[in-house]
Amino acid sequence: MKKVPLESRRQFLQYTALSGAFAGFSLPALSAQSDIDYRDILPESMTQAGAGFSNYGQPSPYENKIIRWISANPDTPGNGVSWSPLHELQGTITPNGLHFERHHNGVPDIDPATHTLLIDGLVDTPLSFTVEALKRYPQQSRICFIECGGNSNSSWRSRPVETAAGYTHGLVSNAEWTGVPVKYLLQEAGIKNNAKWAVAEAADGASLNVSIPLEKLLDDAILALYQNGERLRPENGYPLRLVLPGWEGIVNVKWLRQLRLTEVPVMSRDETAQYTDLMPDGTARQFSFEMATKSLITSPSHGMTLPDNPGVYQLTGLAWSGQGKISRVEVSADGGQSWVDAELQQPVLSKAFTRFSLPWQWQGQYAVLQSRATDETGYVQPSRDELFAKRGSHGFFHFNAIISWEVSEDGFIYHVYPD
Amino acid sequence: MKKVPLESRRQFLQYTALSGAFAGFSLPALSAQSDIDYRDILPESMTQAGAGFSNYGQPSPYENKIIRWISANPDTPGNGVSWSPLHELQGTITPNGLHFERHHNGVPDIDPATHTLLIDGLVDTPLSFTVEALKRYPQQSRICFIECGGNSNSSWRSRPVETAAGYTHGLVSNAEWTGVPVKYLLQEAGIKNNAKWAVAEAADGASLNVSIPLEKLLDDAILALYQNGERLRPENGYPLRLVLPGWEGIVNVKWLRQLRLTEVPVMSRDETAQYTDLMPDGTARQFSFEMATKSLITSPSHGMTLPDNPGVYQLTGLAWSGQGKISRVEVSADGGQSWVDAELQQPVLSKAFTRFSLPWQWQGQYAVLQSRATDETGYVQPSRDELFAKRGSHGFFHFNAIISWEVSEDGFIYHVYPD
Repeated sequence: MKKVPLESRRQFLQYTALSGAFAGFSLPALSAQSDIDYRDILPESMTQAGAGFSNYGQPSPYENKIIRWISANPDTPGNGVSWSPLHELQGTITPNGLHFERHHNGVPDIDPATHTLLIDGLVDTPLSFTVEALKRYPQQSRICFIECGGNSNSSWRSRPVETAAGYTHGLVSNAEWTGVPVKYLLQEAGIKNNAKWAVAEAADGASLNVSIPLEKLLDDAILALYQNGERLRPENGYPLRLVLPGWEGIVNVKWLRQLRLTEVPVMSRDETAQYTDLMPDGTARQFSFEMATKSLITSPSHGMTLPDNPGVYQLTGLAWSGQGKISRVEVSADGGQSWVDAELQQPVLSKAFTRFSLPWQWQGQYAVLQSRATDETGYVQPSRDELFAKRGSHGFFHFNAIISWEVSEDGFIYHVYPD
Repeated sequence: MKKVPLESRRQFLQYTALSGAFAGFSLPALSAQSDIDYRDILPESMTQAGAGFSNYGQPSPYENKIIRWISANPDTPGNGVSWSPLHELQGTITPNGLHFERHHNGVPDIDPATHTLLIDGLVDTPLSFTVEALKRYPQQSRICFIECGGNSNSSWRSRPVETAAGYTHGLVSNAEWTGVPVKYLLQEAGIKNNAKWAVAEAADGASLNVSIPLEKLLDDAILALYQNGERLRPENGYPLRLVLPGWEGIVNVKWLRQLRLTEVPVMSRDETAQYTDLMPDGTARQFSFEMATKSLITSPSHGMTLPDNPGVYQLTGLAWSGQGKISRVEVSADGGQSWVDAELQQPVLSKAFTRFSLPWQWQGQYAVLQSRATDETGYVQPSRDELFAKRGSHGFFHFNAIISWEVSEDGFIYHVYPD
């Protein structure tokens, strides 16, 4: 495999300075004209009034292909996912309309005026909260990612799925969540000494319920009312959802109606039949809440083609860790033989998307692009071989290995397993 | 005026710990029943499948009153504003659908495949960039506010306008903008020694154009392609807008088509007939680009009523500064006689919304709520009297004085000028 040079920022700037026609193109001077009809030379948009104001804005019609991709079984239409188009997005915030979805029995219609949250079980005083009452508690905001435990599940298969980056790795999104720290509500109810877990139940048609260690609820858990500034979207738990920063999606329970404190986990369907990992020795790896450190090159990626004018391209992607901050992202263009540090967009926030980027010079060579994230604990994202060595080959959930894009000499890009 | 106590966070927690029934209410234990029909006790949402997945999500129908408020003259329907409903939002990000609008001749329909940005004037080589070409340049992200120079303009009037907080102070929003640093493009074109300004022109029906100091374009200006992760919304400049962090809205030119480098400002209609301040001595204060430090209590605020159960309320609001980071926000409940420091949501970012909050105990007293922001340079947001003493009484633009909400003894809230 040929080595492909990665460019440092300094090299990139030298490169552009040396090449005036690299992306822009120069124009001949316009000669003076006195009889110009400006309708002929101005764009049409400048010759007429534009559209009026709107109460709630929508994306440009020119971007109507930038959508969540829906994967749901027609026989059980409310059970499935829709993928966030990460390959079409930039920055770190996922706009609310494109936040990934994972539902077990569809999106319930819940009137916030009648919805309540019950806190009961091993508490001194069971309490019930209306949504209006919750708004009187102190609220906190946190920008953090939520990733489905089943994200990237096709990467456990023996052949790579040839789909756009977001449509196979996009069950992860990043938003500013605002709401009431759960500890305030639990403290008000009074926690009995033997309480160690809480069973969180959703008000959806799946009666989804899962067990959550009390320790996490007393740490950084938020009972979210707002998502990127506005009230939660229906598909993200309106009117109330749990947000457990850094923990797998299933325990960020949407449409939350109850937290019942218990001594032991309830071993519900949703934490036994799903979201556990079958290990090589036949045991189940369970309660692997914390999403491991991971990264993904979003551009260039599968399905894109590099035009026939070789030159500098911006490699860019996202890294995230349930353990804290991303401390480093390295990029390889030769399938992992050599690595170069990418630039991390500041500020780097804990348990949140971190955007990385690096200029790359492509002159028509074969290449295999990879990214490898390291978090502040020193944990390094494993190769696919390393992950399989540890977890066996029967995985479905919790895939966090390095993801690879092959660039062919004619500029097409494929999803590959080079190791 | 009676003094009303403001509570520190510690006091708030003590208060809730002492009062189990403060907002939640306790429930009698359910007696065991063997013949339960769960359809009778479960919410309807749990007895049926929910709605399916969606390609692009929308707000809950229950929140359909959370909208931008449109103020446009029917005779000139594309000239006006729509206000961001800040009094209904939380956190710091403004969702794209609710980002304020200010248009001079409506929202143009621009095909990104044909749109170009021309950089000419005092450059070595005039360059024209397609949108696709711009995507090959390095991009950076920045969370920052954009505020219209005319925001809060009604506060220059002799009587306060009785309107919701967002509908008189909400021509300001905060988003993550991503795009190409403008300096890369200018450097590629080559800047002549005598270039000191750039004239930025929009491709809209107003042919909006303004002069911008070259120094700012070489500092932190971004040619934005993305807004909160997705491509710009049409009303926010699709396909290209200038983002000049901390500077007044008008110079964050939307639908950007040209940057012409010049020696002096062009003195366009949009920077002479508008966006200048008539000073007491009859001169015009012009090119006041940097938006001054300001804050606003968003809740409680005009139009809200405090229910008839007095107790602890969360005062919360937003502060921002074109000069850098907010270092402090103080809150008063007695019209400025005494002040208490509010808590600032972390991380505090430069030239971005900072959310502040403080618990407040209301027991039916008359109160005047105010917030006062200080930025990292030490500048303190002035009172209305102080602003008028400096700028005279003929102002229309650039109002940044303290904003006051009066709470009556029956819990109604009014916009007032207490000083």
